[in-house]
Amino acid sequence: MKFLFINGVNLGMTGRREKGVYGTQTLNEINSEIASRFKGDECEFYQSDIEGEICAKLHSADCDGIILNAGAFTHYSYAIRDAIASIDIPVVEVHMSNVHAREEFRHTSVISAVCKGVVAGFGKNSYILAAESFKL
Amino acid sequence: MKFLFINGVNLGMTGRREKGVYGTQTLNEINSEIASRFKGDECEFYQSDIEGEICAKLHSADCDGIILNAGAFTHYSYAIRDAIASIDIPVVEVHMSNVHAREEFRHTSVISAVCKGVVAGFGKNSYILAAESFKL
Amino acid sequence: MKFLFINGVNLGMTGRREKGVYGTQTLNEINSEIASRFKGDECEFYQSDIEGEICAKLHSADCDGIILNAGAFTHYSYAIRDAIASIDIPVVEVHMSNVHAREEFRHTSVISAVCKGVVAGFGKNSYILAAESFKL
Amino acid sequence: MKFLFINGVNLGMTGRREKGVYGTQTLNEINSEIASRFKGDECEFYQSDIEGEICAKLHSADCDGIILNAGAFTHYSYAIRDAIASIDIPVVEVHMSNVHAREEFRHTSVISAVCKGVVAGFGKNSYILAAESFKL
Amino acid sequence: MKFLFINGVNLGMTGRREKGVYGTQTLNEINSEIASRFKGDECEFYQSDIEGEICAKLHSADCDGIILNAGAFTHYSYAIRDAIASIDIPVVEVHMSNVHAREEFRHTSVISAVCKGVVAGFGKNSYILAAESFKL
Amino acid sequence: MKFLFINGVNLGMTGRREKGVYGTQTLNEINSEIASRFKGDECEFYQSDIEGEICAKLHSADCDGIILNAGAFTHYSYAIRDAIASIDIPVVEVHMSNVHAREEFRHTSVISAVCKGVVAGFGKNSYILAAESFKL
Amino acid sequence: MKFLFINGVNLGMTGRREKGVYGTQTLNEINSEIASRFKGDECEFYQSDIEGEICAKLHSADCDGIILNAGAFTHYSYAIRDAIASIDIPVVEVHMSNVHAREEFRHTSVISAVCKGVVAGFGKNSYILAAESFKL
Amino acid sequence: MKFLFINGVNLGMTGRREKGVYGTQTLNEINSEIASRFKGDECEFYQSDIEGEICAKLHSADCDGIILNAGAFTHYSYAIRDAIASIDIPVVEVHMSNVHAREEFRHTSVISAVCKGVVAGFGKNSYILAAESFKL
Amino acid sequence: MKFLFINGVNLGMTGRREKGVYGTQTLNEINSEIASRFKGDECEFYQSDIEGEICAKLHSADCDGIILNAGAFTHYSYAIRDAIASIDIPVVEVHMSNVHAREEFRHTSVISAVCKGVVAGFGKNSYILAAESFKL
Amino acid sequence: MKFLFINGVNLGMTGRREKGVYGTQTLNEINSEIASRFKGDECEFYQSDIEGEICAKLHSADCDGIILNAGAFTHYSYAIRDAIASIDIPVVEVHMSNVHAREEFRHTSVISAVCKGVVAGFGKNSYILAAESFKL
Amino acid sequence: MKFLFINGVNLGMTGRREKGVYGTQTLNEINSEIASRFKGDECEFYQSDIEGEICAKLHSADCDGIILNAGAFTHYSYAIRDAIASIDIPVVEVHMSNVHAREEFRHTSVISAVCKGVVAGFGKNSYILAAESFKL
Amino acid sequence: MKFLFINGVNLGMTGRREKGVYGTQTLNEINSEIASRFKGDECEFYQSDIEGEICAKLHSADCDGIILNAGAFTHYSYAIRDAIASIDIPVVEVHMSNVHAREEFRHTSVISAVCKGVVAGFGKNSYILAAESFKL
Repeated sequence: MKFLFINGVNLGMTGRREKGVYGTQTLNEINSEIASRFKGDECEFYQSDIEGEICAKLHSADCDGIILNAGAFTHYSYAIRDAIASIDIPVVEVHMSNVHAREEFRHTSVISAVCKGVVAGFGKNSYILAAESFKL
Repeated sequence: MKFLFINGVNLGMTGRREKGVYGTQTLNEINSEIASRFKGDECEFYQSDIEGEICAKLHSADCDGIILNAGAFTHYSYAIRDAIASIDIPVVEVHMSNVHAREEFRHTSVISAVCKGVVAGFGKNSYILAAESFKL
Repeated sequence: MKFLFINGVNLGMTGRREKGVYGTQTLNEINSEIASRFKGDECEFYQSDIEGEICAKLHSADCDGIILNAGAFTHYSYAIRDAIASIDIPVVEVHMSNVHAREEFRHTSVISAVCKGVVAGFGKNSYILAAESFKL
Repeated sequence: MKFLFINGVNLGMTGRREKGVYGTQTLNEINSEIASRFKGDECEFYQSDIEGEICAKLHSADCDGIILNAGAFTHYSYAIRDAIASIDIPVVEVHMSNVHAREEFRHTSVISAVCKGVVAGFGKNSYILAAESFKL
Repeated sequence: MKFLFINGVNLGMTGRREKGVYGTQTLNEINSEIASRFKGDECEFYQSDIEGEICAKLHSADCDGIILNAGAFTHYSYAIRDAIASIDIPVVEVHMSNVHAREEFRHTSVISAVCKGVVAGFGKNSYILAAESFKL
Repeated sequence: MKFLFINGVNLGMTGRREKGVYGTQTLNEINSEIASRFKGDECEFYQSDIEGEICAKLHSADCDGIILNAGAFTHYSYAIRDAIASIDIPVVEVHMSNVHAREEFRHTSVISAVCKGVVAGFGKNSYILAAESFKL
Repeated sequence: MKFLFINGVNLGMTGRREKGVYGTQTLNEINSEIASRFKGDECEFYQSDIEGEICAKLHSADCDGIILNAGAFTHYSYAIRDAIASIDIPVVEVHMSNVHAREEFRHTSVISAVCKGVVAGFGKNSYILAAESFKL
Repeated sequence: MKFLFINGVNLGMTGRREKGVYGTQTLNEINSEIASRFKGDECEFYQSDIEGEICAKLHSADCDGIILNAGAFTHYSYAIRDAIASIDIPVVEVHMSNVHAREEFRHTSVISAVCKGVVAGFGKNSYILAAESFKL
Repeated sequence: MKFLFINGVNLGMTGRREKGVYGTQTLNEINSEIASRFKGDECEFYQSDIEGEICAKLHSADCDGIILNAGAFTHYSYAIRDAIASIDIPVVEVHMSNVHAREEFRHTSVISAVCKGVVAGFGKNSYILAAESFKL
Repeated sequence: MKFLFINGVNLGMTGRREKGVYGTQTLNEINSEIASRFKGDECEFYQSDIEGEICAKLHSADCDGIILNAGAFTHYSYAIRDAIASIDIPVVEVHMSNVHAREEFRHTSVISAVCKGVVAGFGKNSYILAAESFKL
Repeated sequence: MKFLFINGVNLGMTGRREKGVYGTQTLNEINSEIASRFKGDECEFYQSDIEGEICAKLHSADCDGIILNAGAFTHYSYAIRDAIASIDIPVVEVHMSNVHAREEFRHTSVISAVCKGVVAGFGKNSYILAAESFKL
Repeated sequence: MKFLFINGVNLGMTGRREKGVYGTQTLNEINSEIASRFKGDECEFYQSDIEGEICAKLHSADCDGIILNAGAFTHYSYAIRDAIASIDIPVVEVHMSNVHAREEFRHTSVISAVCKGVVAGFGKNSYILAAESFKL
């Protein structure tokens, strides 16, 4: 299988910021771990802080499943929502933290409705579970 | 590992109602499939339509992880929320359908904030991914 | 025809409480009157104060039409809503009082949208009119 | 008994528009059917698209019961509400469709609180059940 | 001075309905009393239950001041609001009852912002005080 | 082509009121200008201050396209909304001013959802552009 | 007759501030003018910037009617509301400006519901009309 | 005197969960302490996690006063509200913690309006003070 | 023990106003009764209609417990809230009436969250129960 | 005349996605058609998925009129709103679909208030009508 | 330059309460430090817990700039808002803490709109920066 | 000291647009003036219209204090909020205009809660005061 893992704004800082919330592994280290777990599959990793670039990445995606952690864009980017809706590849929304146990504004996702499913709260394992979902 | 799978109100009807949404497998068939997948683990399955009985089940739970599909109780049962908060065993909230793509009232969960994480939208596989999350 | 009349929480107290609002007849007396009016039909009467039992009754119903006075559950029980939606038998929502002329919280019904119709404000006659509706 | 059936705005189009929702009978045909059913009673039928004319009709009404389908006025005409409140004849609010299963704005009725009761969702039979309610 | 007194929907029923709220004098009797009080002035009285006719009356008004009791239209008729805004003659909004001590929906006036002032709560004297306001 | 231009409440005052907002041409002058621009087409012009009459005009319309400026009715007339929905002729909603740059209440249109499209902010040219839309 | 005119917070600045809104007469000058107009009556004038002192003044009032311009307290002082409700003397709420044509927060009055009536928008004449209301 | 102490959902866990909030005494130990304090009175203690059973207990109550800690049901159970309203025995609402200093959803009680009074924030002493209230 | 009883705005009128709600005893008589009940303790009584004076009284308080009936200030005085939060002496909020069974605005307390507990609905006994709470 | 057509996020996908909503022509094909229609005028076409680039394009614009389809940015980009407000060239907001007949979030435009006008619902012809508006 | 520093309710307690939030310096000590920093200027310091007294101080102010920390009054005192609006001296709103990082109710200021600017979050330095603003 | 001044979307247009609000100095001129004022310190100036670039600039910042005018991003960019929260350098939010005296949407800042403080309303001096705050 061919997976595309997209990480949105600020997620390049993972492991370098708020370690209490996100752990001490960097995004690259997490990506490596994911890649080694899905050795038999093709894994592409993409990160951008720019909303429009994430939309463009979604437009040009060519894979079996997309695992998307949109970061703060989750809460207001109707642009990303429309980009997801415009493609036929299923997208799974993931969050490392349990967003529902944090600030009020994180309880709203404008992209959930156009995703296939949601996985939140399992740290880096959220990515793994989301990818697993395509293999069941 | 020892898992407790709790299904709330109306979920005993799975496979017998709204097959477009929930598929044609009965809850028993789904449970069997889950059990066979986690053969090396101990799986207990519990279903009740009565909110207070689910609270009691949570009170008396003795396992490593609980996988809870509270059904419609998800949206208003502060009783179940308090029951989850009162125990030390981690609870993962699951939904078979993508609740965020359905009616407005299903977008609110009063239990997410006291759960460890959320898995929604993968049909019966939501249960499997939630259980997997404890093994990662 | 075969009718199932379901009365929800507190309605067993009818005739024994708030007589100004609900009259002085007990639920049993009302049921008898209904039964004698629909002599040629089969009438089953069920009452429970427990939300989950009402769901279970709906799951197992086997009749031509259900007349449901959910009492206070009307205003918040998404569980009963889902139970109604899960069966193929048409359900008519009834209220003895005109709920719209009472407290604000009684103006919201979470079950109307999945019922066939609504009859409210005619005292015990609300049940009779609802049953009549199946015979027109 | 003497009944007055009032139909509000757009209801003169019944049977000629949105037949999926309202059926194929015209308002006149429905009125005839109602009249023949209540042969022993006196039935007056009135329709107007003009809110103020409906108020005037209510002011001058002289009968035992009024059956009112206010159409879209139901959702905002405090004028009709006040007209109902100003007379002593009981008014039953009716809707052919189940307004609670349609658009959000149709879930609010500004007239229910001053009516005797509400009957909704039974097509043309809503009128008949409402009239029946006066005879029970 | 030349005054125009406009009474909106249902106000032709004054003295014939809800006497506890509006007193026992008919609108004609009230108008006569007002006219005799402002003998030295020219008083025109107009009543209509039809919103559009009130707008038209406002369009064609030719006087020094308008005293307007819009009745229930007060709470939602942006049409009347625009008609008031479109003319140069000052309009005083009046209510016989103290609308702020009644139902919630009567607390909102969509026309106050385009009127010169508001007089409410003094029964028929509200009209007199409003007219007086032009003479001070 | 056959066009019907409907102007709602207060629009007969155009050119005679609030000239800063609506310009100094009367509605008749505007209509003439439109008619001369669409010389090869059949143009009918209708204006009424009465909501119910506008509904009736919509019911009886027989043309290729309707250009509707409902005036203040735009913001609350569910009656006109239902009338539009009940006919098969496409309706384009127009406003001379940019309603979104004016008072809050003008930002809501209850009729847009059942119209084909919306044109607002171009003065009398809004009518012309709306009619043009049927010819593209 | 015996009148008590109470002016609340900031009103002692009248004629010295925001002359565009409140005119150039000082409160004392306005009071003199009122007193001379009601020569045959007893007029007491009281002003305080302190909410609790206004409550105390209301508690100890001994007159036929109170004319109250509570200033900004109008919009949030439940204390003054309760003080008005606790006495038997009728209170008329007055405002010099048309509060409904000003900022949003001035559209809410927490005291109207316990006053006899409201007079707003007539400058200093609001006081005179309010006092007149007791003499009609 | 004869007292009935009702404890709702999850309260059977008292002393066994969230000891920081509720202390380390079990519900039984608290009940014993209460009973010994009111030795001269008759004290009945009832606990259920099931909403409908609490309603039934209220229906059948036969005592001088009821002390009710509804737990999480406080915030949404209109069923319990109606049960309280349907009986003549006065009910005092109690909470061990100060619910107003906790999560937002705990600030709303749907039962307060039909209770005689409320006592909250005094730990187990809330029960004692509530019972004392009947003896003053 | 040393108690400070603080009564806020309008409460000096107790027994002289709205006797149906607050009884016929004056505040002084109530205070005397309280004092005689807590003979072994030191009781100070303070009343003010002025919000800022109540804050100052709280700042300078020197006792074991404060019993505070803030009257209407309860619903909006963040000033009193902050004063309570700034001192170390525990404060119990009391109300003589059951505020939750009265007007909507009385259902909100801005001070509860910083008080130790709340006692409401027991008339003058609310003060006694609140003081008792410190002795349990 | 010199026109600038700006298309925002995801609009580069037109004709390649959701063909049911947006038709099968690509943006380039639509642009060509527009250009050939306005042969006598100068037409510049710009598309970007990046909000800040659209702001920059607006800053540097040098033409007679801008036709802007901001896509999903319409609903939340106060940045684009401020960019529009900062320039003197008139901007017309366009949408191909009738946004008011789609999801709730598409009913809000944060840019309408600073545009000259709005054209929505006419597919690719929305661009043409908007450009026409500058030539009338 | 001549400055007036006004501190509102509870701020006289600074340094004596909630030292974690406000530091350990008393208001007098802070004032001294400010005065010594602005030695070349005239500094007046005023503190009151009484809203009306702060209004009166604003009315009588005679200086080049006012630095106002209204404390909790910030969030609801429309009286102070009106007092600020009624004078010509510029007022800068200050807060020692970052109010936006505290409770929800502290995020609303009813006075900001009529102040020249706002400085918040710098402890005692907020006063200094606000005064500096007048010298730049 | 080492300062980083970040200006967000549209602020590069300062001095070239809306001069009534922002003055006639360009951003470069303002920056020069700031730099010359803080000659002894190291000042870096950065401007971008692209949200994600501002986040990246925050991620890579290496200085003693950041002065951030996020422009319109202030009101909805949770991305920038999270970027601020992810770094240890204190950030002061500044606005040149008094945002609270402008449109409603400018009253909400989603970044204030994670900033050290806020300075608004002093034109270019807002930057200077914010920088000063680090030196006090």
